[in-house]
This record gives sequence, C-alpha cells and structure tokens, in this order.
Amino acid sequence: DNANVNFGGYVRFGAQYNSAPPVGVTGKVTLEKRIRLNIDISKMSDSGIEMGARIRMQGDENAMTAGNGANAYVKANGFTLRVGNIVGAIESMPGLYAADVGLTGLNFDDLVTNVVGANLGTATPYASYWNWDAYSSTGTGSNGVEAIYTAGGFTAHLSHSTLNGVSGDNQTAGFLAYTFGDWTVAVAHQTSDTAGNKKTVLTVGGKLGDFNVGLAGADNDGVKKYTVHGSYTMSALTVNGYIATEDTSGVDTSYGVGAAYDIGGASLIGGVAKQPTGDTRADFGIKFSF
Amino acid sequence: DNANVNFGGYVRFGAQYNSAPPVGVTGKVTLEKRIRLNIDISKMSDSGIEMGARIRMQGDENAMTAGNGANAYVKANGFTLRVGNIVGAIESMPGLYAADVGLTGLNFDDLVTNVVGANLGTATPYASYWNWDAYSSTGTGSNGVEAIYTAGGFTAHLSHSTLNGVSGDNQTAGFLAYTFGDWTVAVAHQTSDTAGNKKTVLTVGGKLGDFNVGLAGADNDGVKKYTVHGSYTMSALTVNGYIATEDTSGVDTSYGVGAAYDIGGASLIGGVAKQPTGDTRADFGIKFSF
Amino acid sequence: DNANVNFGGYVRFGAQYNSAPPVGVTGKVTLEKRIRLNIDISKMSDSGIEMGARIRMQGDENAMTAGNGANAYVKANGFTLRVGNIVGAIESMPGLYAADVGLTGLNFDDLVTNVVGANLGTATPYASYWNWDAYSSTGTGSNGVEAIYTAGGFTAHLSHSTLNGVSGDNQTAGFLAYTFGDWTVAVAHQTSDTAGNKKTVLTVGGKLGDFNVGLAGADNDGVKKYTVHGSYTMSALTVNGYIATEDTSGVDTSYGVGAAYDIGGASLIGGVAKQPTGDTRADFGIKFSF
Repeated sequence: DNANVNFGGYVRFGAQYNSAPPVGVTGKVTLEKRIRLNIDISKMSDSGIEMGARIRMQGDENAMTAGNGANAYVKANGFTLRVGNIVGAIESMPGLYAADVGLTGLNFDDLVTNVVGANLGTATPYASYWNWDAYSSTGTGSNGVEAIYTAGGFTAHLSHSTLNGVSGDNQTAGFLAYTFGDWTVAVAHQTSDTAGNKKTVLTVGGKLGDFNVGLAGADNDGVKKYTVHGSYTMSALTVNGYIATEDTSGVDTSYGVGAAYDIGGASLIGGVAKQPTGDTRADFGIKFSF
Repeated sequence: DNANVNFGGYVRFGAQYNSAPPVGVTGKVTLEKRIRLNIDISKMSDSGIEMGARIRMQGDENAMTAGNGANAYVKANGFTLRVGNIVGAIESMPGLYAADVGLTGLNFDDLVTNVVGANLGTATPYASYWNWDAYSSTGTGSNGVEAIYTAGGFTAHLSHSTLNGVSGDNQTAGFLAYTFGDWTVAVAHQTSDTAGNKKTVLTVGGKLGDFNVGLAGADNDGVKKYTVHGSYTMSALTVNGYIATEDTSGVDTSYGVGAAYDIGGASLIGGVAKQPTGDTRADFGIKFSF
Repeated sequence: DNANVNFGGYVRFGAQYNSAPPVGVTGKVTLEKRIRLNIDISKMSDSGIEMGARIRMQGDENAMTAGNGANAYVKANGFTLRVGNIVGAIESMPGLYAADVGLTGLNFDDLVTNVVGANLGTATPYASYWNWDAYSSTGTGSNGVEAIYTAGGFTAHLSHSTLNGVSGDNQTAGFLAYTFGDWTVAVAHQTSDTAGNKKTVLTVGGKLGDFNVGLAGADNDGVKKYTVHGSYTMSALTVNGYIATEDTSGVDTSYGVGAAYDIGGASLIGGVAKQPTGDTRADFGIKFSF
C-alpha cells in the first residue's frame, strides 16, 4: 500500500569536559555518546490527507536505547494536527536553538528560555531550565495536542498539554513567525498553571553579508534574558558563538564558541562555553546523520 | 538470504469519554493515542518450513513505546508451533472480538469471557476481565506454548502456559472452529490452576442478507454471559452494535453502538457503550494501518 | 544518501533442563526462547571513513525485548575506534567461545575466563563468571572505549572502561592474535581496579585433518583453568565437545557435548553439560539467523 516506515537519526560521540561534574560522576572529562533513531510512519489517504507517527529510540552514554512516548498526526493543506509527545510551540519557534555551540549544546545556556533565577547558589542551579512543553526523546512527553499552520513565509503554532488530566495543570503556548528574504522573526508566548512557566519570547535571525546573525530575548515570568549570536562559514569550516545575559543578580554573562568541520557525510564538532554559574564546559567529537 | 524483517501495525488517536474515570485521571474527556509497531521476522528453510518471530513495540497516551515479550514459531503443512508471548486459544477463537465497537473497544464489555461477577460494587469491577492466556502488547505475555492446525475450513488451537514454572500455575486452553460458506462456529474451553479462570465459550457468526450477525455465550467458572451483535455496511460507512447480559445479580445489561467511515487508507471511528456497572464510555478518532 | 540501517540477528527456541534450577523457577525443564535483533546503522564518508552504530533489541523467555546501550564507531584503513557498549578485548579474542555446546551455551563453563573459585559451595557459585568488559545484550554495557587494528592475519585489540567515572574503577584489556593457514593463536590480558578481575588468557585453535580442535588456558587472578575441545562435521551434522578443569580444590572437571543438524536455513541444536558444581544442564531446540 502507500504506507511507509522510515528509519533516520544521528550518531555522535566524543569527549566532554565539565569543570563542575554532576553528582555521581567522578572526573571532569567523560565519554559522550548519543544514538538517535527515529521510526517515522507515514501514509497518504486517497483523499490526500497525510497521516503519520513518530517513535524515537535514543540512548546516551550509560543509558539504554529505549522507545519514547510516540506522537501521531494528520496533515493537509498546510495544516497539521499532532497529539501525544508533541513538539510544542516554544520548542518549535524559529531561532530558539540558533545559537547552540559544540557537539552537545553544552547545557544550552544560549536559550533565552533557560534561566537560573532563584536557583542560583543551590545544588541544582539549572532546575528551572526546560520548563516548556517540548518533545521528549527519552520520556513520554507532555501528551498534548498541537496545531500548526503554514502558508508562504508564515507559520502559526498552538500547543496545549495535560489534556489527559494526570497533573491537572494546563499549559498553552503559541508562536507566530514570518520569513522575508534571508530574515525570520518569531514571537511566542506560554501560559501555564505551573508556577514560573509563563514566558514571552522574541527571536530575530538572518544574514549580514557572509555572516549569519541573530538575537533573542525572553521574559521568563519576570526573569529577562537576552542572547546575541553569529556564525561564519569558510569552505568546510563553520565557526559560531553567542553571548547571553540574564537579569538575575549574581548570574554571570554566559558565552560560548564552537566550530564544525565537514568531512563529507559527517562533521567534527567542538565547542567551549562559560556558564551562568561561572563553570566551564567543553566538548569535541564526530557526528553524522543517517 | 531468504529472511525478511517486516514493519507493520496501526496508529489511532482521538478523544475518549468515561463517566467514571480511572483513579489518578482528572476529567472525563481525555486524549486517546496508540501506536502499534509489529516487527515481524520470517524465514523459509530450504525444506519449506517457515520460521519467524514477532516483537511488538506499542505505546498509548502517557506511556513509553516499548518492546514487549517476543514470540517465535515454526510452521509447515498447516501446522504452527509457537512459543513465548503466545496468542492463546481463547484469545484466537473466531467471533470473540466480533462485537467490538468504537475506536478503542470501550472496555470490551462485549466479550463473553469478560465478566464482572463478585467484583461488582468494588473499586475494581473489571478485575476479573482478561483472565485467559492472551498476547500481551506491552508485557512479557504468558511465556507459553501453542499449536495450531488448519485444514480447509477447520482450525484447531491448543495453548498452554507457565511452562517456565515461575508461578507454577498451569493454564491450558483449546478451540475448534469450522467455517462453511458465510458462517463460522467455534467452541473453546480453558482449564487453569488459577481460581476462577475456567471457561467454556461458544461463538457463531455469519451473514443474513446484507447484515453481519453473530452471537456468543460463555460459562466463566459458573458466571454465564451472552452477547448478540450485528453490523451493516453502506458504501464507506459501517455501523455496528451489541447487547450483552451477564447472569450476576445487579450487573446491568451492557450495550454499545459504533460507526466507522472509510476515508480511503484510514477510517474515522467512534462509538458509545453502556457498561455493566451502568457507567458510560464513548470515543472518536482516526485510525490507519501500515 | 550513503547511509544504511540494517536489521539482522537470530531466533532460537526449545527446551532446557537444569538439575539445579535457579531460585524462583519451579521445575527442571523450562522453555527456552531468545529473539535477538541488531539494528546496525552505517555510513561511509566521502573520504572513505566508515561510521556506524549498533543498537540491540533482545528478549529471552519471561522478559521484554528492550533496546540495550548502543555503541558507535569509526573505521578506516584496518583501524576501528568504538565507544559505549564496547565488545571488549577479552570477549573478542579468537577461540574464547570456540568450545560452546548446545543451543544456549549451557552456562558457558567451557570458557577459561569463567571460574568458580571461592564461590564454590555458596548459593551463587557462578557469581564471578563474566568478570571482564563485554558487550551487553540487555544492559548499558561498560560505556568504554576500544581500538582494533587488523592487517593480514594479525589483529590487535585494546579496550578500556569506566571513562565516565560512575564507578571510578578502571579496567583495561588487550589481545593479540595471529592466523597462519588453518591455525589461530591469541593471547590476552586484563588489568582492573576491581578485585579479582585480573586475567591472562591464551587460546589456540585449528584443524587436524577433518577435526577442528582447540585448547585454551587462563590465569584468573591466581585461579587457573584449562579447556580442550574439538568438533567434527559430516554432511549436515556437526558434533562437538569439551573438557575443562579449574585448579580450585573441590571444583569438578566440567565437560559437555553438543550436536547441530542443518535443515537448510536453520539448525536443530542440542547439548548436555556437566558443570563444575556437579550439576547437569541440557537443551534442545531450533535456531535460525536472519
């Protein structure tokens, strides 16, 4: 029939350095390894409706390679409805991850939606990171519903979670994005019954001559964060960097630089980043997609 | 070589309504989602013996998509021997699931092998449902052995579990079925060391003009249950329904109606059912196979 | 692109006998079932570097079929670098598993690296078996690093684990092997921070007329063990056997015999073995690869 099961993903491995290793890890330099395998099921109805589902099997170092919570969708005329382990509007907005450096993202301090806030000085300074609905590679996800509409350069995305009522907390987010020429602007907002999860985010990204540049800002329930970033490609080599500031007293300006060298089918990637706590992370390794 | 690994299954999602939601779920309307992926391994020996195995990865809403306990088989001359996560004779008998309604089966109160009995009025009225050896989509299954023989319209199936002796309880079941023209009759019996699992089941199903009709009856260790059901298809639409009665004092007559609309490669399916406890369930959504 | 995802493995099932069944199992004869599915990802870079990863999904009787810890590698010019769930140098050395009998290996008492030692007479006489870095089919593995170099008949393999520092114990192993004509000689050594894991191993295997023969010896942190083995094939039937002695006072000489009959695409395999504790194991069943 007209159904298809496709297998894709990526493999990366190398070494990572963390000046403040997590509890239970001895040694600042550790092995980095991730295998991501997406199982993508798709089918086209006779009437032209695309239907599908994704299961991801992913494993990092010291972890099993398990199947996550799946999502499923229908898609027609630029409109997509997806349920289950949704990707989420904040997570999907253009520009949010544009400043990532290194093989692993190095804690993703470049994301303006990740703030330390009141967790500064505690044993878990990053406890409030990732407090929006996002696709979970190794968990069940938010078991939500989302709708995405695309027309020309315009995209709108609305997501909602806890429909199954297990927690009872409602969380709703949306983004609007527009691309004109080399530039894309996006604005997003999240409301939530969970304390501290309210967010408003703005991203801008584009080209200035040979440079890709961007900036982003967010109000995270009162905690403001801004990031500027840029990248430059010469032949097989791409270098990039970012600077991020959070308006919490005592939080350091964070910054990072990265480089990727394309060896034809794979890349050698490395990066180093100063974290908002003053700690340093670095990584280096190989990554290829399949 | 002549080995093959095939990927198939189905995806369904939508909404379900339960007037008596399970403990831990707030809200009567919840998201329904299931992804079922069968990994079917098969190989033909030079001498014409088919060998194979099935692993199923399945996940519902709020659950990981994990691999279950596998089964394996050899097959030749109409005879199949299967071990591990067996399907079971009761579970496999023709007509047992013929009365199912809706996207999800709505608690499968139509099955004459599912009885409330002494659990009426307790917090878990359906605790004795599913008390026969059956294929487990998300568990290890019964780790048993079964033999199936088919010749012409005749099928015989014998299953046995707990060979591995973990529980020590033996459970043995068998069915005989015969198809003549549009009609199929099947009779099954299960014996068990587990209290309450003894069963005798009879099903009849066939065609009366444009209608598919059937009836089933079972003695579940003294608790009798009967179901009559029918379906009618006009063009892309199929409607069906059932009425089931259990001879336990205080248990309501249960009934359900369903409808499925074929959109060419997928179906929109919904149903509503009155349960033996008097509660109501309903569902609606899309389902497609791949 | 030039990436590939391949699915292979084997299926086996039958019955096994154990005169001393494990705790929790009632009955000496139990069902044997294993499904092994390797998901092998590979890609060739434009510059001729092979890259890849392996995820294994495996399940035995009474177990789920879960994905294990993955490994990943790069390979070029006879040199392989692999990380994660590594195979390990001891585990990979030629001849280590050459004496296996039966469908299941029957406790693998033939391996000179498996010794009872001080566990004799305890409830877990085999507690010190498998005390080297080896590929884990159902766990995360040792999360190590290994390098393998092959040129002509020569192979060198070096492996190291606990780089991630979770336990802090370092374990390093290496083997050298050389094949000349029908004969292969290999020598291996393992050092470890874990008490009792030190090992030196020697294996020799080859052909004497129509017989395949081999011998192996190991010093396991002072406990010496020796195995001699042989096999003979006539048409579709292969028979094999081994005798193994451990220099621990009170440990029996262990021995086993096996037979495999090729039915063209699958084999009927069985064996019986006397264990170092004096217990007896046997098995019989079918096995096919895909």
